[in-house]
Amino acid sequence: MHEGDLVLLSGADRKPAIVRMQPGQEYQTHHGVLSHDAVIGSRWGESVQTHLGYAYTILPPSLDEMIRDVHRATQIIYPKEIGYMLMKMNIGPGTHVLEAGTGSGGLTLALARMVQPDGHVYSYEARPDIQATAQKNLERVGLDAYVTFKVRDAEDGFDETGLDAVILDVREPWLLLQQAHAALRGGGFFCSLVPTVNQVGVLLRNLELRSFGFTEVEELMLRPYKAVPARLRPVDRMIAHTGYLIFARALLAGTPVPVAEPEDMDDTEDDL
Amino acid sequence: MHEGDLVLLSGADRKPAIVRMQPGQEYQTHHGVLSHDAVIGSRWGESVQTHLGYAYTILPPSLDEMIRDVHRATQIIYPKEIGYMLMKMNIGPGTHVLEAGTGSGGLTLALARMVQPDGHVYSYEARPDIQATAQKNLERVGLDAYVTFKVRDAEDGFDETGLDAVILDVREPWLLLQQAHAALRGGGFFCSLVPTVNQVGVLLRNLELRSFGFTEVEELMLRPYKAVPARLRPVDRMIAHTGYLIFARALLAGTPVPVAEPEDMDDTEDDL
Amino acid sequence: MHEGDLVLLSGADRKPAIVRMQPGQEYQTHHGVLSHDAVIGSRWGESVQTHLGYAYTILPPSLDEMIRDVHRATQIIYPKEIGYMLMKMNIGPGTHVLEAGTGSGGLTLALARMVQPDGHVYSYEARPDIQATAQKNLERVGLDAYVTFKVRDAEDGFDETGLDAVILDVREPWLLLQQAHAALRGGGFFCSLVPTVNQVGVLLRNLELRSFGFTEVEELMLRPYKAVPARLRPVDRMIAHTGYLIFARALLAGTPVPVAEPEDMDDTEDDL
Amino acid sequence: MHEGDLVLLSGADRKPAIVRMQPGQEYQTHHGVLSHDAVIGSRWGESVQTHLGYAYTILPPSLDEMIRDVHRATQIIYPKEIGYMLMKMNIGPGTHVLEAGTGSGGLTLALARMVQPDGHVYSYEARPDIQATAQKNLERVGLDAYVTFKVRDAEDGFDETGLDAVILDVREPWLLLQQAHAALRGGGFFCSLVPTVNQVGVLLRNLELRSFGFTEVEELMLRPYKAVPARLRPVDRMIAHTGYLIFARALLAGTPVPVAEPEDMDDTEDDL
Repeated sequence: MHEGDLVLLSGADRKPAIVRMQPGQEYQTHHGVLSHDAVIGSRWGESVQTHLGYAYTILPPSLDEMIRDVHRATQIIYPKEIGYMLMKMNIGPGTHVLEAGTGSGGLTLALARMVQPDGHVYSYEARPDIQATAQKNLERVGLDAYVTFKVRDAEDGFDETGLDAVILDVREPWLLLQQAHAALRGGGFFCSLVPTVNQVGVLLRNLELRSFGFTEVEELMLRPYKAVPARLRPVDRMIAHTGYLIFARALLAGTPVPVAEPEDMDDTEDDL
Repeated sequence: MHEGDLVLLSGADRKPAIVRMQPGQEYQTHHGVLSHDAVIGSRWGESVQTHLGYAYTILPPSLDEMIRDVHRATQIIYPKEIGYMLMKMNIGPGTHVLEAGTGSGGLTLALARMVQPDGHVYSYEARPDIQATAQKNLERVGLDAYVTFKVRDAEDGFDETGLDAVILDVREPWLLLQQAHAALRGGGFFCSLVPTVNQVGVLLRNLELRSFGFTEVEELMLRPYKAVPARLRPVDRMIAHTGYLIFARALLAGTPVPVAEPEDMDDTEDDL
Repeated sequence: MHEGDLVLLSGADRKPAIVRMQPGQEYQTHHGVLSHDAVIGSRWGESVQTHLGYAYTILPPSLDEMIRDVHRATQIIYPKEIGYMLMKMNIGPGTHVLEAGTGSGGLTLALARMVQPDGHVYSYEARPDIQATAQKNLERVGLDAYVTFKVRDAEDGFDETGLDAVILDVREPWLLLQQAHAALRGGGFFCSLVPTVNQVGVLLRNLELRSFGFTEVEELMLRPYKAVPARLRPVDRMIAHTGYLIFARALLAGTPVPVAEPEDMDDTEDDL
Repeated sequence: MHEGDLVLLSGADRKPAIVRMQPGQEYQTHHGVLSHDAVIGSRWGESVQTHLGYAYTILPPSLDEMIRDVHRATQIIYPKEIGYMLMKMNIGPGTHVLEAGTGSGGLTLALARMVQPDGHVYSYEARPDIQATAQKNLERVGLDAYVTFKVRDAEDGFDETGLDAVILDVREPWLLLQQAHAALRGGGFFCSLVPTVNQVGVLLRNLELRSFGFTEVEELMLRPYKAVPARLRPVDRMIAHTGYLIFARALLAGTPVPVAEPEDMDDTEDDL
């Protein structure tokens, strides 16, 4: 590996750290001091030891690990939801996407990783201190070049238009629907993540009024297992809830929203 | 919109279709004939009607929708799992990733979308007929340039080395671990998706023997809601199971695998 | 086995039927005719054949199977929820419990089975035709002696007082809280099952106003597996939602409702 | 209320206690001393205060609360699984049921509550110290009269025959299948709860060999919500796993086990 590389130091304590390697520097762990030079001098997938003999394996960090490693100014959006957003909103190389608010920058980081080289992320946040933390989180992993940070109350509107996707990660996303619609291209992707069913209800009612259609509400549950082949079983506890994902599409004003044909409400009967 | 654009035609019947628009052509639907010229002449987010007056809204397709639209030669991997793989394996612009087997190409399509412009997908499949279907699915959405298809029994090994990630979507992934390790860079990302717990057990036992570490087993459950604000509730039925995701990292041969410190097996007690 | 016994006839088609055996009678199945005498002449756990040679195993019916076998006038409450209600409301031998409305009588049947010999079930239903169906369902399994059926709009109030438990299975349970409280003993158990989050919200707000406390909201998900040892895995589809269970306790009017100490809203953080 | 009553003392700290009220006695809480006489002198559903002014509401305990309150010698079976067992095995008034092993007696307590007055519970446990704890737990709630405790290694067999139901809560239930079958009536109900998929697999293979049929494997997930009407949402964390429930029926030796007709393995396709 080379100096300047971003490294995931992963030990037996299940508390990995992400560090950029610089010659001559040292990294303090709970299990002793690790010399950057020792890491730079070794190969990916190898283990290096602290002065106390604690072993860390040297790994390239995943996007999941980078997000879990951000300094938290706020609750973050979980990788499982972010990954699903990428699929549902076709966010990838070349995508121009806007998010409000920036928060800790976990989602920002993932978006910046995915839209490069010719896409871009526009990230709005009302509180400068919070956005400053997010910006540092992006700089730490070298992805800030793909993000334009703006400190602004999103209710004042967005500068961008014709965007491919808009993601609202705020307490009252329904207050920003007009602004989101104005920033989106026709048929553009909308998503919001909210923790309570009350917020889902209010958002759904307002999406109908603001020329959004094809609305979907979904939640994702992640269930980890104890990876012990002789005693394979789910872990004892899991996260019960991160939030509800609401997806929609920006329709041209005046476009009639297709009324979905009703499902059979009795279709659980025969499952009995 | 312009000719040659890939369009999602979405109506009230919840059976969207993805079509590439070409002047003078017609598209047959269950609800009448749609003229490509009418679509090309309209704007994204607008609705166009068939000769029977059935309305289709013109939308840019999401990656999720493209995957659901592939012609099926085999069971496909679901977008929720694919999105999570992207996060857990840092698959994005510039990534060089290998998959075996190709299957219907749903995963291949998603990988090709994400690794462009300078990454690449290497896709191995033993059955030529199946891979031919996948290749057509990629050509249909214009992503085949980012994929090298190879018809080969993966047990004969892979040509590539130093890859960032390897994904095994085969019935017996444990037979390909040596080949996968040889194709991966040090610390590279490994993933396999299997439907049964028996397969999880065999795979876990063999990962330990083949210099893979930091193994994780997880499953994702997607729960859709009926997006009716006045009667918000989950749908009646959901998919109970798609598969178990097994993630691991390629360690340099001889690198001691850190033994994770045990969790407290009684940590559910106080939840009572 | 003896004549008059209630028998579950269970074959390979996974469509068991519950029949009371009477000498000389015949039972028509999709797989041929079965003679009651043949069943009466055999032993529990044995198989008997139709005139077409289709085998049915003779089993005592479970409460779960009796409920799934009721003639449906309405959607029924699922056994998994009923079993949990028994535990959360201490419904068993000696319990006096009221339900509104009766519906198809699935819950009524389970309650009648459990409160005997000296407990009793009071079941209110506004529609006589629906209650008639339920009454037949109870008579069919010989449990009607433990139930008093009343055709009445529950808003007009209940005749009983000092009951151990009240269960509201109606569209607008919040309209019956005063009546439910009047029918309950001090500290008595309250439960309602509703399908939408909107109903949960309205019910919670009204419970606070009607001297109910210690309110809990829970949902149960049942995930069946394919019981094949060599390919053990969950089934492909499961029921995503049956309803939300709301439990509460009747407090003496004027008793201050303890305000639960807040949980740490950030307690998911360290799970990342 | 009267002296000798079993009372659930429930305060704002969500740590309820179950106490039998006896004149002149005092109950020590983390929030001060509570006089039994004060409780006896008040009514169900009322609140009484400790000498420090902390309020406890006086409630009749639910079966769920009694189980959660048992002194733990071992991990207990959760009320949600117990309630479902009652439904699936028709355990209620009059049922004769056997369990091995006794463990902390949580399940024993629930069974004893439900089979009275004329049913009975036979509970086997190899370790006398553990069974002694369970017996005390049953005496505490006055349900020991419905249970016969036996200290014995269950592999030595059971004394009873013709039982309605047998429940195995042991590490290796497959070693007790012959004994369980011998104790059951024809068509009798069998259930075992095991934490790992490995145990499920071994048990399923042996059930087929020991004249058990109609085997089912299921798991139950309980998801609690924060009962706040203005911010309704699931709690942050839930229990991810308690165990897998395996149900089966005792067939007469030699009775051919019906081979269930296969399900369509592709039936998830159209859900995409």
